[in-house]
Amino acid sequence: MDSKYNIVSIIRKKRDGQTLEKEEIQHLINQYTADEIPDYQLSAFLMAAFLNGLNDEESAALTEAMLNSGTIVDLSEITGKKVDKHSTGGVGDKLSLILAPIVASAGIPVPMISGRGLGHTGGTLDKLESIPGFQVDMDLARYKEIIGKHDLVLAGQTAEIAPADKRLYALRDVTATVESIPLIAGSIMSKKLAEGIDALVLDVKAGSGAFMKTTEDAIKLGEALVGIGTQFEKETIAYVTNMNQPLGYKIGNWLEVEECIDAMHGNGPDDIMEITHLLSGTMIYLGGKADTVKEGIEISKRQIENGEAFQKWLDIVEEQGGDTEVIKSPEKYPKAEYEFEIKSNDEGYLTAMDSFEIGMASVELGAGRRKKEDEVDPQAGIILHKKIGDKIDNGETIMTGYTNKPQTIEAASAKLYAAVTIAGTKPEPVHLVSHIIDQKGSRSFDLDSA
Amino acid sequence: MDSKYNIVSIIRKKRDGQTLEKEEIQHLINQYTADEIPDYQLSAFLMAAFLNGLNDEESAALTEAMLNSGTIVDLSEITGKKVDKHSTGGVGDKLSLILAPIVASAGIPVPMISGRGLGHTGGTLDKLESIPGFQVDMDLARYKEIIGKHDLVLAGQTAEIAPADKRLYALRDVTATVESIPLIAGSIMSKKLAEGIDALVLDVKAGSGAFMKTTEDAIKLGEALVGIGTQFEKETIAYVTNMNQPLGYKIGNWLEVEECIDAMHGNGPDDIMEITHLLSGTMIYLGGKADTVKEGIEISKRQIENGEAFQKWLDIVEEQGGDTEVIKSPEKYPKAEYEFEIKSNDEGYLTAMDSFEIGMASVELGAGRRKKEDEVDPQAGIILHKKIGDKIDNGETIMTGYTNKPQTIEAASAKLYAAVTIAGTKPEPVHLVSHIIDQKGSRSFDLDSA
Repeated sequence: MDSKYNIVSIIRKKRDGQTLEKEEIQHLINQYTADEIPDYQLSAFLMAAFLNGLNDEESAALTEAMLNSGTIVDLSEITGKKVDKHSTGGVGDKLSLILAPIVASAGIPVPMISGRGLGHTGGTLDKLESIPGFQVDMDLARYKEIIGKHDLVLAGQTAEIAPADKRLYALRDVTATVESIPLIAGSIMSKKLAEGIDALVLDVKAGSGAFMKTTEDAIKLGEALVGIGTQFEKETIAYVTNMNQPLGYKIGNWLEVEECIDAMHGNGPDDIMEITHLLSGTMIYLGGKADTVKEGIEISKRQIENGEAFQKWLDIVEEQGGDTEVIKSPEKYPKAEYEFEIKSNDEGYLTAMDSFEIGMASVELGAGRRKKEDEVDPQAGIILHKKIGDKIDNGETIMTGYTNKPQTIEAASAKLYAAVTIAGTKPEPVHLVSHIIDQKGSRSFDLDSA
Repeated sequence: MDSKYNIVSIIRKKRDGQTLEKEEIQHLINQYTADEIPDYQLSAFLMAAFLNGLNDEESAALTEAMLNSGTIVDLSEITGKKVDKHSTGGVGDKLSLILAPIVASAGIPVPMISGRGLGHTGGTLDKLESIPGFQVDMDLARYKEIIGKHDLVLAGQTAEIAPADKRLYALRDVTATVESIPLIAGSIMSKKLAEGIDALVLDVKAGSGAFMKTTEDAIKLGEALVGIGTQFEKETIAYVTNMNQPLGYKIGNWLEVEECIDAMHGNGPDDIMEITHLLSGTMIYLGGKADTVKEGIEISKRQIENGEAFQKWLDIVEEQGGDTEVIKSPEKYPKAEYEFEIKSNDEGYLTAMDSFEIGMASVELGAGRRKKEDEVDPQAGIILHKKIGDKIDNGETIMTGYTNKPQTIEAASAKLYAAVTIAGTKPEPVHLVSHIIDQKGSRSFDLDSA
């Protein structure tokens, strides 16, 4: 053990609100990974960091230490700037499945490593795995092979990627130190930087269905993420987007894939397409294939219209072992055994939807996980028929629920009824994208200045 | 495990600055003591408590839980109000050895359980053990027997007393959560309340040689201690006393016993006698043998003058196996092999002494411990020849050091030289006792209002 650093002194320094040296953070994480520091010392440090914060340099040092605890994929042999996107997670957030094929089809390599869903939000891997045969687990050689062939790979996290983050996260989970912006940012960025990317677009969600409940917190998280990206010399742009209602109309693993297929055919819901094209347009811009985000958005739209995005999607599904028949004919996919409707008992306008409760109802029905060990049901989920601002008549169907576990319907229905607010006055439309954050700082979003 | 309480929720509540229910704190400590909660969860809680604090009720609940983790001595069969004194620790703080015999000789039972020294401060047990043969380890039956016979017992802490505190302290020591006022207060009070006392006097030291460096912090600690005492319906009075220079002239285990013997013969230094009589007078008042603290002080002085305090001291030394010959003739005690002098290289007035550095020099010479496992040398120590305010000529001896480890002299001398400030102007005298804290709150000390 390196005697230059004393663990208790490092904890004390953070406890007293002082700034740690990069070497102190490295020492802490390296020794923890090497089992030289017991959990009880690291958890005291995590609580001190939770309460006193970490500045940009400290967050970057933490990220780097976790990044270096595992393999950093070398994609230098792949031509072009590698760009990925990460979302902090929301309800009905299926955008990765649409934008990754769009961007890859525009000639920009997208090496995407995703996670599974936990709690009220779904996970990209669970959605992919609802496609029969689709393989997300692979070794690094296969990962490189696929991205080299298709400019796209959709993989799950391996044990080689940032193992320190995995241990730290497990400890945070049982010591009430999860909801810390610098710790969240370090965890996200250590995994993303390990992918071998050159640039990154971040979708930081704010609202009832997101981890960040307020726009202020979402901006802070976005700033922390962009701060770390900048320190690693990766061009990073973050958007703060609204998660006060689910994205699109479908929630649940296969239901969301279905909605993505529609979107790739040019029939996506407005909210989904607005954010998808902004994110993929930004990726195309960062990938060097457009001079502005606006131009990137035009290319993104073109890749849908000319069918190349959907073709890329078919190619990658086939490459990763998935059944392309259900992608071509989604109506062939088997439906859940039970369905039930949520009907209005009032008339007026839909003024609010509690995305968190809708997400939890979808978990109840089988679409998500309460604990890591839980299995997900690809068929379970919810289809919304109305969204905020829509006029609703008495007795009209607002949502349909799908499940293979009929015993869950009662509890899920109660959640869904409670999640909906109907009032007499039509609500003001909400901006989907509120802020942009890049090296120049954070500011209100305006496409012309993006 | 009681499923009513979730440990992560308890940690989160304290993390978010909320107040815990008594039952939540009980659950936390009970489950920890029963090995149902891992160290890493308790250390996260301790850091949250360190940074967000615990209020009076929470501190009392923590104290009670730690108290109830072990035996609470039942002294109800001993006649009279049992009163003890606790000091937060200072350099040259030997007052327990003088005041305990005074108070006991006045007919008030004093059941005193003390600790060993660690760091710059000495411990009562180490001083007692410098008397050849003196036994501080005993079981509870013997403890009760001695107090029943002499109204006095001077014992070490047993494994039965507040074991949760012992485990908690060990965890705090390695997680940088020691210096928290409510955690310190809970630790002190859980041990004191276990003694079977009815009332308690506290000497909270403030200054360079104390754990509380400022008077403000000492007042806060005093308030926390009195707050807990009050919640347990034990009359508790705390004084904030000055520790900007060592107490008396002698530092080191036997050297301090020697100074106590002088004091019991009526020849104690002014600072020692002023605080001793205040504390013992307050104990006599709380023990019901005086109507005011002032009257208690008169009784305390009388017990020195009439020789009864010294006789009580001889009795207890004999009862606990100590050699009374060296108590009667301290000059027979063997001296340390090496001595060295610290001489002035300037003339003027002694204006400041760094008690912390003097305490650390005494540790260096062998009188104290750096780590719990270290052995102490009863002969090692320091005699001061000058104190703050004294006139000093060039070349005059300020201190003499004593050790059996000649290799320590150089480092200890350097510390001692650095600890002394000489200047041209005589400093203003400092009040030894600055504040009194009781059920009515804290206020500036004034004997007439005590």
